[in-house]
Amino acid sequence: MSIDIAKSLTELDGLGSSLYGKDFLLTWEKSDAELKSVFIIAELLKELHAKNISLDMFRTGLAVSNFRDNSTRTRFSFASACNLLGLAVQDLDEGKSQIAHGETVRETANMISFLTEVVGIRDDMFIGKGHPYMKEVAEALDDGFKNGVLNQRPAVVNLQCDLDHPTQTMADMLFIKNHFGGFDKLKGKKIAMTWAYSPSYGKPLSVPQGVIALMTRYGMNVDLAYPEGYDLMPETIKAAGDNAKRSGGSFKVSNSMESAFKDADIVYPKSWAPYKVMERRTQLLEKSDTVGLKELEKECLAQNAQHMDWICDEKKMTLTNKGGGLYLHCLPADIKDVSCENGEVTAGVFEKYRIGTYKEAGYKPFVIAAMIAACTKKNPAKVIGELYKSGQKRVL
Amino acid sequence: MSIDIAKSLTELDGLGSSLYGKDFLLTWEKSDAELKSVFIIAELLKELHAKNISLDMFRTGLAVSNFRDNSTRTRFSFASACNLLGLAVQDLDEGKSQIAHGETVRETANMISFLTEVVGIRDDMFIGKGHPYMKEVAEALDDGFKNGVLNQRPAVVNLQCDLDHPTQTMADMLFIKNHFGGFDKLKGKKIAMTWAYSPSYGKPLSVPQGVIALMTRYGMNVDLAYPEGYDLMPETIKAAGDNAKRSGGSFKVSNSMESAFKDADIVYPKSWAPYKVMERRTQLLEKSDTVGLKELEKECLAQNAQHMDWICDEKKMTLTNKGGGLYLHCLPADIKDVSCENGEVTAGVFEKYRIGTYKEAGYKPFVIAAMIAACTKKNPAKVIGELYKSGQKRVL
Amino acid sequence: MSIDIAKSLTELDGLGSSLYGKDFLLTWEKSDAELKSVFIIAELLKELHAKNISLDMFRTGLAVSNFRDNSTRTRFSFASACNLLGLAVQDLDEGKSQIAHGETVRETANMISFLTEVVGIRDDMFIGKGHPYMKEVAEALDDGFKNGVLNQRPAVVNLQCDLDHPTQTMADMLFIKNHFGGFDKLKGKKIAMTWAYSPSYGKPLSVPQGVIALMTRYGMNVDLAYPEGYDLMPETIKAAGDNAKRSGGSFKVSNSMESAFKDADIVYPKSWAPYKVMERRTQLLEKSDTVGLKELEKECLAQNAQHMDWICDEKKMTLTNKGGGLYLHCLPADIKDVSCENGEVTAGVFEKYRIGTYKEAGYKPFVIAAMIAACTKKNPAKVIGELYKSGQKRVL
Repeated sequence: MSIDIAKSLTELDGLGSSLYGKDFLLTWEKSDAELKSVFIIAELLKELHAKNISLDMFRTGLAVSNFRDNSTRTRFSFASACNLLGLAVQDLDEGKSQIAHGETVRETANMISFLTEVVGIRDDMFIGKGHPYMKEVAEALDDGFKNGVLNQRPAVVNLQCDLDHPTQTMADMLFIKNHFGGFDKLKGKKIAMTWAYSPSYGKPLSVPQGVIALMTRYGMNVDLAYPEGYDLMPETIKAAGDNAKRSGGSFKVSNSMESAFKDADIVYPKSWAPYKVMERRTQLLEKSDTVGLKELEKECLAQNAQHMDWICDEKKMTLTNKGGGLYLHCLPADIKDVSCENGEVTAGVFEKYRIGTYKEAGYKPFVIAAMIAACTKKNPAKVIGELYKSGQKRVL
Repeated sequence: MSIDIAKSLTELDGLGSSLYGKDFLLTWEKSDAELKSVFIIAELLKELHAKNISLDMFRTGLAVSNFRDNSTRTRFSFASACNLLGLAVQDLDEGKSQIAHGETVRETANMISFLTEVVGIRDDMFIGKGHPYMKEVAEALDDGFKNGVLNQRPAVVNLQCDLDHPTQTMADMLFIKNHFGGFDKLKGKKIAMTWAYSPSYGKPLSVPQGVIALMTRYGMNVDLAYPEGYDLMPETIKAAGDNAKRSGGSFKVSNSMESAFKDADIVYPKSWAPYKVMERRTQLLEKSDTVGLKELEKECLAQNAQHMDWICDEKKMTLTNKGGGLYLHCLPADIKDVSCENGEVTAGVFEKYRIGTYKEAGYKPFVIAAMIAACTKKNPAKVIGELYKSGQKRVL
Repeated sequence: MSIDIAKSLTELDGLGSSLYGKDFLLTWEKSDAELKSVFIIAELLKELHAKNISLDMFRTGLAVSNFRDNSTRTRFSFASACNLLGLAVQDLDEGKSQIAHGETVRETANMISFLTEVVGIRDDMFIGKGHPYMKEVAEALDDGFKNGVLNQRPAVVNLQCDLDHPTQTMADMLFIKNHFGGFDKLKGKKIAMTWAYSPSYGKPLSVPQGVIALMTRYGMNVDLAYPEGYDLMPETIKAAGDNAKRSGGSFKVSNSMESAFKDADIVYPKSWAPYKVMERRTQLLEKSDTVGLKELEKECLAQNAQHMDWICDEKKMTLTNKGGGLYLHCLPADIKDVSCENGEVTAGVFEKYRIGTYKEAGYKPFVIAAMIAACTKKNPAKVIGELYKSGQKRVL
């Protein structure tokens, strides 16, 4: 899976640097060239890391992480990415409280950014709030930079919002791109993004939404399937449809896991909560209505329990293309008889693809690092090229 | 606001380095030359940061932060400062418990310092305790260094105690120095340090105390005003009076916000709790007397509520020198109709000076970095000069 | 205590590098040459740190800390060690929950390790669980590295488990080696590892177990003494006995503090909980049986209270060799009339040896750094030699 570094640098150079000075919030706001440049940088960084080349394009500088939801994996991915580039992570711990006033967000964003190069935010629990919060932070930083408060404009990177999870889906994409041998090989491939049963409730919508919106850009046939009622947010459905039209692929929605799996080259079975439930949940969370939340959970778990047959098992895998479809998951998966009694996937299917899912996850730190590099460097190809040429060892 | 680097380095060199091997706890313990050297280093670091010069005068080394009170802004300022110089921050999280025995402070101070270059402490909640705690840590480090336990003597930096908040007030000072065009331009200027209404209670005394003690050193006319009963700690009142005499300025105390604002060139309206209340609070906190604390809070909020007219509004601002006085605040301000119903300042006044207050805050990381450099470098001018000459880029 | 750097590097080079690619979990799994190489590296790093030589053998890279028990000292030692070598610490905070399934440990270990060079783990509360957990993490990392998930195999370092506390005991060893003037001077010296009274209960067994297993390797006469019932885990008793036989020293167990102190050159009086109690405690902790834990605590404190005479006081110290035995402690000690009413040691004895115990602790960061270097470098002597030769200043 080794890449031609010189060729990649030339290709990257040709893509321009329209991400410079911008943020990375939603893949569907980005051009194909912009996504491509992030993919190329990610693979360059991964290759150069493996080759023990030092990639500290920042000698000092802070990377602020703002996790408004628990996270272990994304936290480590972000920390790894920032450390790779030479940045030190400082966590902004707001406690559980929502910052209430626009005024305060504007002020806090500036107060934490005097020597900051990137702000990574996770805000995926509040439907209709996560993405606007990130935009509000970005606007505050624009204001501070424009007015001379900040020496530099930190890039804002979406580490998962209510709409999209770009660092995850772009890691997924790099994994399947390499699995099938190139972006051009993805044309006409069928991917099943399906709901799957989980004994928990309230899992974010951002992964399925991000997957359908991204995968449809590469000429793939994207089948979204879920039990009736488990709808995604309308704007992401629209983005997926538009992208499919443009790329020459297709986008279909059904209520059958089996029909989605039929002849699929890739399956991505994963639990999520219905959009409408997440909206009610947002309102209850805002009111700190513990009783209401308990009732909603009970109701939803009962609803989930009617769909235990939505499991990725050996039988359903035989429906995939020649029975050899590729299984994806953003991890951790709810594995039947391992982490739960009934879950998203059987132990047998998961074990077969386990190392693959780990490698899929392994792209994430490099995707995050690539987003940071693309958004903060006027000429990322030149910066990476110089680091490569200087050949400073990362580890003695 | 760009500075002449060569000239600043020469001036810094001429000031000597009597801070080397010392701590930075209270401005009134420091000579004018010592304060000046911190100011010059802070501005050099700020300028060189803007010029993308790498300032990592430490290749490795720990910076310990010890926050005995919540903090976001100071935490980020300290992290930024340490990172700028090449140090990694490690937080000493004591929980909420006061360390009870001198023995333990002495031991802990050494145990966390084997590879530590600076210890930043915030301890502002306990009247009569914060400053002594910092001195106790400093003495323990002296003991460890003298006895060969430590390879180096870490500098202790006061990130806010019961008496002073030097990183804040020296940032305030750099802001007004540059606003008016130099330290010599401050002579004869009038500054009103006044109490202002806040719907909360228990705000530390360190900012007003630090402001009156510092601003009186530069020939300014410092007017302190607060409602009857909201006294500051006597030793800081004395320090302010002494400093005013020496500098040719003046220091007056009154109970009228209006008379303080009259013809003021600068106003600094800010809530604090009466000294006597903070003493009672200290005793209740030490006994973990929750009921007593609740009662004290109720009593104090009622007392505060009698002084809602102590607000910095458009009308009071017209009293200032030609109606054009400069508004300062250490942030966050309690802004009427934005973050509270009634507060320290109206939205209109705050918005007019908002960017200014952000820039004021923007000096803080560089002031902290300057204190660290001044206390740990035998010849800071030489170190900074060499970093400047080598011209290593901070960001590629 | 300064060392001959060139000579140490040559000696280190001659010891081979059989720790490369391995973990450091238990001293009794390691050969004499392996322990020696860690000791030499630790002293080289300490000396070069004092000489202001930069030791950042990693330009970037993560060090994961996983503390399953509270820690201040070891946390700072690990942070200091990693920072010295150029690594950034990222804490894996699992909350209080035990990770339940092997599956999850395997997955988590990989998810946090994509750019990780070392994983430091403390897991000392659960008898029979701590060491197996560390091995499970190590196996998961082997699996990930072998399957191409990880670019590098991070080293696992035991920061205290149920069996051993190698970073502590090897720091103790370096202190006494230097106190007596060399490893060869330790032959025939008597060390008393004894229980001592503490008003708390549940202190880990790893220090006494680690001490008897390590000290017996150097031809010392190791006397273990404790009140009846306060047994250590059988496998560590066996390791100590075997080691004593091989090294020409001796290992004795008695129930008399006085007979252990008699003519001792070194005493290490320290509280611990009986092995059987720790087993019951493990079961209660696993069931979150708060009532059972309270009862067990009460019972144990009553049992402890019968042995208040197990204190290291001036009288017992007169029993030691010419009354001049060396006092060791891993700190913090329970000091009578200072940190408790009755404790492990009197204030007078402790104060006499206080600076010594601080210096003892001062070896720990360098021992940890040495373990990391030994386990991650194919030729540590070459790497350290190059850093020394290049003479890059650590602090400007």
